[in-house]
Amino acid sequence: MINQFIRWVLGKKLENERLEEQKFNVFWGTPILASDTVSSVAYAVEEILWVLVPVVGMASYLWMSRIAVIIILLLVILTLSYRQTVAAYPNGGGAYVVAKDNLNTLLGLVAGASLAVDYTLTVAVSTCAGTAAITSAFPHLFPHRVLISVIVIVLLAVGNLRGIRESSRVFSVPTYAFVIAVLALIVAGIWKHHVMGYAHVPNPSTSHVSFGTQAVTFLLLLRAFSAGCAALTGVEAVSNAVPNFEKPTVRNARVAYILMALAVASTFGGVAYLASIYHAVPDPHSTVIAQIATDVFGRGGMFYFIQATTALILVLAANTSYSGFPMLLSVMALDGYAPRQLALRGHRLNYNNGILLLSVLAIILVVAFQGDTHLLIPLYALGVFTSFTLSQFGMLMRWLRSKPAGWLSRALINGLGAVATFVTVVILSITKFTEGAWIVLVVVPLLMLIMIRIKRHYLSVAAQLDIPNDELERLDLTPKYSHHVIVPIDSLNKMTVKALRYAKTLTPNVVAFHLEIYKGEADKLRKKWTLLKTDIPLIIRYSPYREIIRPLVEYIDSEEHASRPGDVITILLPQFFVSRWWELFLHNNTSLFIANAMFHKRDVVVSIMPFYIQDL
Amino acid sequence: MINQFIRWVLGKKLENERLEEQKFNVFWGTPILASDTVSSVAYAVEEILWVLVPVVGMASYLWMSRIAVIIILLLVILTLSYRQTVAAYPNGGGAYVVAKDNLNTLLGLVAGASLAVDYTLTVAVSTCAGTAAITSAFPHLFPHRVLISVIVIVLLAVGNLRGIRESSRVFSVPTYAFVIAVLALIVAGIWKHHVMGYAHVPNPSTSHVSFGTQAVTFLLLLRAFSAGCAALTGVEAVSNAVPNFEKPTVRNARVAYILMALAVASTFGGVAYLASIYHAVPDPHSTVIAQIATDVFGRGGMFYFIQATTALILVLAANTSYSGFPMLLSVMALDGYAPRQLALRGHRLNYNNGILLLSVLAIILVVAFQGDTHLLIPLYALGVFTSFTLSQFGMLMRWLRSKPAGWLSRALINGLGAVATFVTVVILSITKFTEGAWIVLVVVPLLMLIMIRIKRHYLSVAAQLDIPNDELERLDLTPKYSHHVIVPIDSLNKMTVKALRYAKTLTPNVVAFHLEIYKGEADKLRKKWTLLKTDIPLIIRYSPYREIIRPLVEYIDSEEHASRPGDVITILLPQFFVSRWWELFLHNNTSLFIANAMFHKRDVVVSIMPFYIQDL
Repeated sequence: MINQFIRWVLGKKLENERLEEQKFNVFWGTPILASDTVSSVAYAVEEILWVLVPVVGMASYLWMSRIAVIIILLLVILTLSYRQTVAAYPNGGGAYVVAKDNLNTLLGLVAGASLAVDYTLTVAVSTCAGTAAITSAFPHLFPHRVLISVIVIVLLAVGNLRGIRESSRVFSVPTYAFVIAVLALIVAGIWKHHVMGYAHVPNPSTSHVSFGTQAVTFLLLLRAFSAGCAALTGVEAVSNAVPNFEKPTVRNARVAYILMALAVASTFGGVAYLASIYHAVPDPHSTVIAQIATDVFGRGGMFYFIQATTALILVLAANTSYSGFPMLLSVMALDGYAPRQLALRGHRLNYNNGILLLSVLAIILVVAFQGDTHLLIPLYALGVFTSFTLSQFGMLMRWLRSKPAGWLSRALINGLGAVATFVTVVILSITKFTEGAWIVLVVVPLLMLIMIRIKRHYLSVAAQLDIPNDELERLDLTPKYSHHVIVPIDSLNKMTVKALRYAKTLTPNVVAFHLEIYKGEADKLRKKWTLLKTDIPLIIRYSPYREIIRPLVEYIDSEEHASRPGDVITILLPQFFVSRWWELFLHNNTSLFIANAMFHKRDVVVSIMPFYIQDL
Repeated sequence: MINQFIRWVLGKKLENERLEEQKFNVFWGTPILASDTVSSVAYAVEEILWVLVPVVGMASYLWMSRIAVIIILLLVILTLSYRQTVAAYPNGGGAYVVAKDNLNTLLGLVAGASLAVDYTLTVAVSTCAGTAAITSAFPHLFPHRVLISVIVIVLLAVGNLRGIRESSRVFSVPTYAFVIAVLALIVAGIWKHHVMGYAHVPNPSTSHVSFGTQAVTFLLLLRAFSAGCAALTGVEAVSNAVPNFEKPTVRNARVAYILMALAVASTFGGVAYLASIYHAVPDPHSTVIAQIATDVFGRGGMFYFIQATTALILVLAANTSYSGFPMLLSVMALDGYAPRQLALRGHRLNYNNGILLLSVLAIILVVAFQGDTHLLIPLYALGVFTSFTLSQFGMLMRWLRSKPAGWLSRALINGLGAVATFVTVVILSITKFTEGAWIVLVVVPLLMLIMIRIKRHYLSVAAQLDIPNDELERLDLTPKYSHHVIVPIDSLNKMTVKALRYAKTLTPNVVAFHLEIYKGEADKLRKKWTLLKTDIPLIIRYSPYREIIRPLVEYIDSEEHASRPGDVITILLPQFFVSRWWELFLHNNTSLFIANAMFHKRDVVVSIMPFYIQDL
């Protein structure tokens, strides 16, 4: 029943031969890969205003425009840099791979851990921001925002466990719709303000954030810049997915970068400009885009269309992590830095353990931060920019080492990217430290420590298991020890007789072992045993404390037992299997208990011989 | 660490030889066994008032006195009846045993199920009433009443898991203290009213229950009588515990019954009289006894002493269920009507599974009814009186069948008891049906059904396991089948080599079995296998759906495997054991997975050969 339901939800299993990446062209592929970055437009402008408005009030809009220009410049640098990464890593150049290849393993782990944190945050931030778009349109849903976000994550998990890629073209639509909707908003907004002469009337219900009147400080501007950097998260996505493009893959990926940069620059710049002319004010109950859309279009069809496409592209952005995170962890698992179950393909050929892990972590984040985008974002950009920096430095080192034709200009571009992103990392660490970035600065090293310990464990296991080929050739499989079987029995019945008969096929050294829990309780068994006329000795031990494991171990180690050091001992446990699950609770299940406990006490083989009980 | 903590809480384990019942004399034993009944005085009067006051107002006090007289009469009949049970069952005559012995098994189960429900309710009702005594004295604790009750139950569970009997004399004190306190209250209360001429002034804060002015109906009086019957719960306790008395056990137990009846009659009658002259009004925030004590003594030392002894005796009453319930279920388990784990003695020689079960059930009740004594009591008396009735009818049948000297007068007494309690059962079922008694009328038959199915399962198991002695004598343990071993391996390493070597000691029919999860992945193993130069064949099967169990079962059942029907097949699973718990999550643990799943697919022996990995 339960299995059938799961099968129905997740779809039927797929065979290995179905594993082939679906290729997409620039038109359908770009919007999917760019959705993470483009969707950041939905909250990046708002984040800048959250920093500025409460402190400097109306001066915010002037400064925001300048900061937006710097962020767009940073976008241009990153785009140029990543176009080079695409050319150098046609099989996909994630920051982990690039840093490990060109710098060293430790920096690779920094990039890997940062990316893992970043992917998790992408899911949490994007679903919360998507939920904010929904609750801006339908304010009565606001109290349920955590639940809505969790439901979205669960749906994403189910979709990805089924394997969402099948219908990828559908996922291109929201990005186009969002870009078109935002561009329409920008054009109409500029028209309404400059041509129609419309001026924003502050709405007392939405602008309850008190306007600041303090002076602008440099630190404040750095904080505002940091907040805006959220717009650039996800730029690396295209470079990870180069092989997914149709041929010529590299050229297509490089075109995708240009398209993405254009979309982000125009929408981000446009929304920043609109926010400044419409004097949008950050408000937890209504997003900045929702405020501007209300002013420009009123609460009509266009308003709801913008909110819907915003919510959709944000869900899509969360979805990009569902390919990135499991893929990253499977690569790290193959390298031995993550549990190897993460490299196993599930029944639908996807990395289902990674998908589940990501979902659980994202839900924990959403619940812990009560679905507040604004609280989560400070944690967000730091991981992204750390991986950017390492990736760019890696590329820089690559050019300096291999020096191919035109290496100097390439090194300059990646070097500029590396410096720019590194400066951003420093700014982010300082300005957002107390707002939550410290969590990332704790978690990333902790993750690295765990990764290193995992690797050490795998190396240690391999060292203890490995047999070199020359040793293998000399190996003799003939056993040099005696084998002893002990059959713990509670009485003589069909099940224990079956076990004793089986034990006799294994070795002549068989004993039956009975624990007398109460004095005199074994007398009946003694009598029955004499009827059996067998050469198997019956050992009876009194257990005054009603223990089971300890007397058994003591017996094995005693003089009475004929085994010598080096011999192998098998504990053969007859166990009955009942036909209904609840009947299991009607039995002591001593055998299963012994099986579990024995391994911790002594190096023995544990055999379980089933005896099936029917319902009569 | 956790084990040490549990050991510290529960005390060190005890050996079988420490199992001896502590005997008590009449003076110390009676108060312990009588605590359940005596403690009912704390709420029985109040329950009568809850029925009467809202309907008939001041007329309540007249009618209550009459009802109290009837209940005391019922107490006298029960005392006389049970004194005969004591004489007939010197080894303890619980209702389950008496009904099963003298009526039939089905009625025995009715009594057993009713008693089990009753014991659980005793814990829930008594702890809630004890908590009410505490919150009457300290009203600010009222919002935490559920938590307080749960904590009391947990403490009772821990105390009983440790084995509380050791210090039994301590447990006699609360009953004496309670009886003395209540008698003092009665004497002082009568003195103050009749001699000093004190008249109760209604307190607007406690008497907010609106006074009724309707006419008295017969049904109302029946309902009030039903409510008061709560005073008689626990009368059977002495008869269950006859062997715990010093010699002469029967005489001592019969004396105990007289003492208990005197204590209950005087305190119950006295409190009922006080309530009528002080016009006590039921109030969830202050018990009737607390109201009277406030009037008589003021909120001074005596008031708090009465509340304290009330709370203590109620906890003690709950504690009596902790010997009754596990004892009853162990007897029923030995008869095959309850899971046999309930008949096992724990590390402190008590029936710890029964203690845990009782605690869990009582906590569920307390939480479900939000710690409201008044809601729980309608469920309470029905089970008790059902077991009374069956016990008395059983005794009646016993006298009618065996006809010993003086059988007629004995039959008359038990017959009177049977009729009186049966009439009470009918009254309770009708008047309390809608108040919650229907739950008992559903739960008791359900429990009986479960008990019968458990018995049927045990009989079915026994039938499938049993070997008669004559068959045992003719039994030949020499196996008549071939034995085949299959060793699933993922690669050739020290662990799998150890397993293959062991397999060779068991039978010449050994194969190694490898599943190729991805095409070509087994090539390395094939090459290594040729280096090994062994006669063990290596079977490689491709598993396109990445399954493990199904291809293994298919291989076993295929022509390729040499086993014939009737042969025994062992799946030998090499499994490594890591030294830290978290390292377990770094491995697929396929072996443990196979071990668990295999039994449901096919009748095979599963052997687990451990390989211990050190931390290097």
